[in-house]
Amino acid sequence: MDFREKLTQVIHKNNSLLCVGLDIDQEKMPKFLFTDSKDPFFDFNKNIIDSTKDFVCAYKLNMAFYEVLGEKSFELLEKTINYIPKDIIIILDGKRNDIGNTARKYAQSLFEELKADAVTVNPYLGKDGVTPFLQYKNKCSFILCRTSNPSAGDLQNIKSKGIPLYQSVAKKIKEWNVYNNCGVVVGATYPDELKITREILGDDIPFLIPGVGKQGGDIEKTVRYGTNKNGEMAIINSSRGIIYKSSDCDFAEKTRDAASSLCNEINKYR
Amino acid sequence: MDFREKLTQVIHKNNSLLCVGLDIDQEKMPKFLFTDSKDPFFDFNKNIIDSTKDFVCAYKLNMAFYEVLGEKSFELLEKTINYIPKDIIIILDGKRNDIGNTARKYAQSLFEELKADAVTVNPYLGKDGVTPFLQYKNKCSFILCRTSNPSAGDLQNIKSKGIPLYQSVAKKIKEWNVYNNCGVVVGATYPDELKITREILGDDIPFLIPGVGKQGGDIEKTVRYGTNKNGEMAIINSSRGIIYKSSDCDFAEKTRDAASSLCNEINKYR
Repeated sequence: MDFREKLTQVIHKNNSLLCVGLDIDQEKMPKFLFTDSKDPFFDFNKNIIDSTKDFVCAYKLNMAFYEVLGEKSFELLEKTINYIPKDIIIILDGKRNDIGNTARKYAQSLFEELKADAVTVNPYLGKDGVTPFLQYKNKCSFILCRTSNPSAGDLQNIKSKGIPLYQSVAKKIKEWNVYNNCGVVVGATYPDELKITREILGDDIPFLIPGVGKQGGDIEKTVRYGTNKNGEMAIINSSRGIIYKSSDCDFAEKTRDAASSLCNEINKYR
Repeated sequence: MDFREKLTQVIHKNNSLLCVGLDIDQEKMPKFLFTDSKDPFFDFNKNIIDSTKDFVCAYKLNMAFYEVLGEKSFELLEKTINYIPKDIIIILDGKRNDIGNTARKYAQSLFEELKADAVTVNPYLGKDGVTPFLQYKNKCSFILCRTSNPSAGDLQNIKSKGIPLYQSVAKKIKEWNVYNNCGVVVGATYPDELKITREILGDDIPFLIPGVGKQGGDIEKTVRYGTNKNGEMAIINSSRGIIYKSSDCDFAEKTRDAASSLCNEINKYR
């Protein structure tokens, strides 16, 4: 089964476009876990997964939050990935990029060792930095196009013959997508750019859309502009806005409420 | 001591601009290590370091080659980093990039946990993706400008008002460099672009220049265009072209010869 099939199935099963970002951060996690649990990071993830798995189509693990844990990092990633139900999409968000020889190692690490369904890739190095990821034909490589952060425009808005760079990247993605396994990242914080990118790339390409939670992206516009004509092929991510709703024992319950409510709000506009 | 001081000292001490890339790769490493050694990857690095430490100013560890080893990765990175003599520059090459909140975790991981002197950063997200790295004022963040790979130009050559993107990035780096701790990555495979980038950025900024070995960059032009007016502030990297010179017991010796000869060739043009 290829990525888009798997995505469509889980979107239908859970009636959800929501992705929960498992961005573990000791400073923001409930304090009691660090006294009561032998494995606080995994227990946190386990609880979040248990309480949200009926309301999501995907989980996204940002590699930075794991790498910073040092030697515990790999095992925690593996355990968390193994715990996620098999029908839900797993996105490893590392925004990796390097020359071909080296990008191959990143692709191997993320798709083979860690068994991601999808990864994020930075396009600055051009086609041969992206190609090794695209060799994994049944997986998906979400290529950064317009990111959600305030200074995204520093480079991404630089215009060539009136066309901003992020649109040139969208057009490159169309060229690179020979195996139909490219995806694209566009931040919810830039709804106009989201609309234009969907217009450039058409209905078949999956969009990974961060920025609706803490970063403040508008949900109605995100859904309207980011999904395809069937209200699908979009994965709308919230991390901090969902998983840190409470620092007490009720954290999983509060996260469940937040996920369920965001999932419903998204569905209102599909 | 800040990064540029440390770099200048080691360049003087070893009379070298050479950086050896410790890009461990089981497929290319001597086979006997995997039967004779209990710790083949570390033993390989140890031998390479022992045999080249008098001819280099820096070692560069590309994160992809470590990450692919999974749970062994962090310990191997740490052991290798600890083994490198304290006066030699350590560059962790991960080309990291993310929104501010997340980039902070990457910076913490590379500079605090792993104690890198310098890292590589991808500029596609703009200023707020770079800033968390620049908060480490005595370290150096080498920002990708013109990469060494064949399709580097896909994005980096897109022109705005006649100026290719990589030059716009060079100008952004000039703006971002308020703590004088930015560096820049330009591939030896693009000597004209190297020359222009040095002209834009002036004499004080360190250049990390990959691509002289296997990738075929011209050494004379690399030195002439990449160094500053003192023939310094440039780190010229070779990985595969140096460390895989032999797959027999003499691999360290052959690497020593290759490093010594490349160091001398570079010095010829300084």
